[in-house]
Amino acid sequence: MLINGKPETSVSADDRGIQYGDGLFETLAVRDGRPCLWHYHLERLHNGCQRLNIPLPNESLLYDELIREIGEQSQGVVKVIVTRGPGGRGYRPPQESSATRIIRWSESPNYPEANYQQGIVTRLCSTRLGWNPALAGIKHLNRLEQVLARSEWSDPSIQEGLMMDSSGYVVEGTMSNLFVVQNGRLMTPDLSRCGVAGIMQGVVLRVAEALAIPVIVDNVTLHDLWNADALFVTNSLIGLWPVRELSGQAFDVSVIPRELISRVMLQAYAHALS
Amino acid sequence: MLINGKPETSVSADDRGIQYGDGLFETLAVRDGRPCLWHYHLERLHNGCQRLNIPLPNESLLYDELIREIGEQSQGVVKVIVTRGPGGRGYRPPQESSATRIIRWSESPNYPEANYQQGIVTRLCSTRLGWNPALAGIKHLNRLEQVLARSEWSDPSIQEGLMMDSSGYVVEGTMSNLFVVQNGRLMTPDLSRCGVAGIMQGVVLRVAEALAIPVIVDNVTLHDLWNADALFVTNSLIGLWPVRELSGQAFDVSVIPRELISRVMLQAYAHALS
Repeated sequence: MLINGKPETSVSADDRGIQYGDGLFETLAVRDGRPCLWHYHLERLHNGCQRLNIPLPNESLLYDELIREIGEQSQGVVKVIVTRGPGGRGYRPPQESSATRIIRWSESPNYPEANYQQGIVTRLCSTRLGWNPALAGIKHLNRLEQVLARSEWSDPSIQEGLMMDSSGYVVEGTMSNLFVVQNGRLMTPDLSRCGVAGIMQGVVLRVAEALAIPVIVDNVTLHDLWNADALFVTNSLIGLWPVRELSGQAFDVSVIPRELISRVMLQAYAHALS
Repeated sequence: MLINGKPETSVSADDRGIQYGDGLFETLAVRDGRPCLWHYHLERLHNGCQRLNIPLPNESLLYDELIREIGEQSQGVVKVIVTRGPGGRGYRPPQESSATRIIRWSESPNYPEANYQQGIVTRLCSTRLGWNPALAGIKHLNRLEQVLARSEWSDPSIQEGLMMDSSGYVVEGTMSNLFVVQNGRLMTPDLSRCGVAGIMQGVVLRVAEALAIPVIVDNVTLHDLWNADALFVTNSLIGLWPVRELSGQAFDVSVIPRELISRVMLQAYAHALS
């Protein structure tokens, strides 16, 4: 682990990351010793820093630290946390803050191949996402909603839970974005009120455009789910997983265009885009 | 600063407090070397631990650590943070977690006497509170909404900002609870969807009952604010501040019953209740 460029394992207890969850993070797949889709992750981190008014760490410094932390490892995960840093009495951010950078390597999760081929089993979570346009889209450190939602089940045969917002619209998975396939079109939830704008969600949108598959970004209802031809979820580590079951209802994973899946998986681990 | 009972200043960067804001806190006034209203703070912390399924630290251990951290100091502030502790891959809490305790002394904020006598100037924040019944009431570490709201102004003549929820109901101040006085009654926002159930808010409710002042806990609208006879805010450090101005509209602080204020201020710093 590198903290502000130094090999350390702890941060100041004064850090606003721990005091208020005042910061952002990115989780990147590593292939052939390189972080995948780095520029997209950096763009979202940059956007998050602007929204929270946290000074963005120097980009090349951050990239160098990623490479140092990856070291001789070839395949795995690297997580970047950027907080507003220490200090400030109460909620008000200090006038001059100096961001804390935490960069940490971890092993590949080694997801079963069946998740990709046969699809995954999902459930609906009862924990809802609150609306907050000021925080929507960015990957900030206030993640109790996801922690509570992921605490709802322990059955290892269920790989993901889908979450609704306080109005009952379906927004995302606890750790993934959601796509609905119907009548040859894709639909994915509007994330302007809550949810995280996933890097892999962005990849799917671009691949779909290249393949001339129509995509609708809008409110998604439970009715949309139950009437879907197929569902799939995406994130930076998994790439794309078809959904074969949601709360007991089966879905036909073969409906998802093969070409879409293969192109998304190819780009998921691309350095050309990094 | 004491971390898990030891005089340290840093926590593991793996701690779920920094990873996800996965924890709770309490901020207590200290008078005559003792934490005020300790049992009420402990009760809320206990409630928060139950809601988040975090093991509550041993109560007498926690109190002993508070007393150790206060040491020879007579008057000031002591803050307690309890996180779910280190570990767990992703959002799912580890099956056996061991909570982290961070206890930290700080000096008294020394609020101006005028805040108590003449009242404070307040504004309406544009940052809204999202609805989340699963997190409402407890004092958890996901505080970006408050950080953003408190970032909206830097004018030192404004002491507090009031926040609405995503439906436009008025919920609380960035660091305080809100009371509306009208026709001899008190009204305070319903906190079942968002907001923090303040210890001092509880004191006001009990004092009002003792004084036979009727209190309504319900949705509070902007209309209720503009038509109020008086407003005041409360928290554990300030006790009670009358509001003399909200976004340019003046309020008559003398409308707030003197007996209510004096009894609340007396209880705010009581050890008899600790």
